[in-house]
Amino acid sequence: MFVHEHTKRIRYGETDQMGYLYYGNYALLFEIGRVEAIRSLGISYKELEEEIGVMMPVLYMESRYARPVKYDELITIRTILKEMPTKMIEFHHEILNEAGKIAHKGIVKLFFVDMKTNKRVSTPSYISNKISAYFD
Amino acid sequence: MFVHEHTKRIRYGETDQMGYLYYGNYALLFEIGRVEAIRSLGISYKELEEEIGVMMPVLYMESRYARPVKYDELITIRTILKEMPTKMIEFHHEILNEAGKIAHKGIVKLFFVDMKTNKRVSTPSYISNKISAYFD
Amino acid sequence: MFVHEHTKRIRYGETDQMGYLYYGNYALLFEIGRVEAIRSLGISYKELEEEIGVMMPVLYMESRYARPVKYDELITIRTILKEMPTKMIEFHHEILNEAGKIAHKGIVKLFFVDMKTNKRVSTPSYISNKISAYFD
Amino acid sequence: MFVHEHTKRIRYGETDQMGYLYYGNYALLFEIGRVEAIRSLGISYKELEEEIGVMMPVLYMESRYARPVKYDELITIRTILKEMPTKMIEFHHEILNEAGKIAHKGIVKLFFVDMKTNKRVSTPSYISNKISAYFD
Repeated sequence: MFVHEHTKRIRYGETDQMGYLYYGNYALLFEIGRVEAIRSLGISYKELEEEIGVMMPVLYMESRYARPVKYDELITIRTILKEMPTKMIEFHHEILNEAGKIAHKGIVKLFFVDMKTNKRVSTPSYISNKISAYFD
Repeated sequence: MFVHEHTKRIRYGETDQMGYLYYGNYALLFEIGRVEAIRSLGISYKELEEEIGVMMPVLYMESRYARPVKYDELITIRTILKEMPTKMIEFHHEILNEAGKIAHKGIVKLFFVDMKTNKRVSTPSYISNKISAYFD
Repeated sequence: MFVHEHTKRIRYGETDQMGYLYYGNYALLFEIGRVEAIRSLGISYKELEEEIGVMMPVLYMESRYARPVKYDELITIRTILKEMPTKMIEFHHEILNEAGKIAHKGIVKLFFVDMKTNKRVSTPSYISNKISAYFD
Repeated sequence: MFVHEHTKRIRYGETDQMGYLYYGNYALLFEIGRVEAIRSLGISYKELEEEIGVMMPVLYMESRYARPVKYDELITIRTILKEMPTKMIEFHHEILNEAGKIAHKGIVKLFFVDMKTNKRVSTPSYISNKISAYFD
């Protein structure tokens, strides 16, 4: 298992007139979480696209809203890899509010596409080499 | 069952550098779909908040990405109510691309909160009166 | 002079906790306005990029906020071309609220880039042919 | 004069299919810049609204696009107060790309509204007390 945490402050433009973070803005938090999680392992999503020629489209996303998140809160995006990725990679996310309580839970599943052939491929070794140490 | 369709054009600002509608922008499409679906039944979400004093926070959202949606496509947001709402209301969505193929499927579950007491309530009669005819 | 109008409804996700359309979301309204304005003249921005190979990056934008725009308002985006474009194209925008009052004024200046050479070019004939009739 | 710098990474969801930061997303960068600039002076915009009862709507915004900003760049948002605010506060912004070159320049002018009376007021002492030291 691999767990990573990244903090982010909620901006005015991300709230809605209910006074909360808009329900559609969690997807961006998940993006930030997964990109920073893999960056901490030495994996750059930008490099993956530009040098390895692989992109990662999203296949599935799930969001459970437990508590509202408010303007100016410094939230924590916790990103968890529970299993070694194979044909897919599955990120679990927990959004913690400034008080440290779980405000939101999410899952995002992505797959790998060779940008030259436009065909689906398995996890590139560029990724698996760097995360295998976290899984038996 | 109640089915409603609404069209929307995809804008440059909604795409990402993959050239597709950004995966996080489907939530706004679902919002457009559910608000226009209930408007077609004579229900105004704005009126619900301002006159009935009830707001509808989101509890759960699910997104399945089948095909990418591209810049300038005139998509159709199909919104389906399969069951009479009780303590929750559950919207099913299908996003059809310009060619009429299903590009995306989503589910959004919302609940009802009395804005004075800040407590959860059942479906207000303002809503149920207008949609009960579609359900036995 | 060429004037075009396009209506759009303001969504929850576009408001902020002040209860107004977020100040940063006017740029998307301007994009909608200019793309629909040129579409009404038979010009497709998508075609411009894909078939003519010219893209239009923004050089300058200006926004004047006169009145707030609120959730669910059906606004009108008025787009005005005051002059025949040369090395640049300049769109003037007026955002009218649902009551028909001017809520916002904007200016967006864009230039033309040949996507093969990545160099700046003058207004493509694909555009000028279709709009010259509006200017002496 | 008061100058403040804050870094931010550009996310996939903030790019468009041109591969650049979408032209409409600079307004959020300006918001981040001005809020962090005043926070560094001990001023919380959240506190201003909730405790002082003053909000700051935007009156004018101006954006000059010099260089594109790309996905994953760690940009610097430089925020400059050139003059002591009076009836308005005027923020100047420079967006520096990862290489340190100025990619964008912006100006945002905001005014102050008493949230109880809904009337325009001068700069609250909550703000002026903390920034007067930077101006003669």
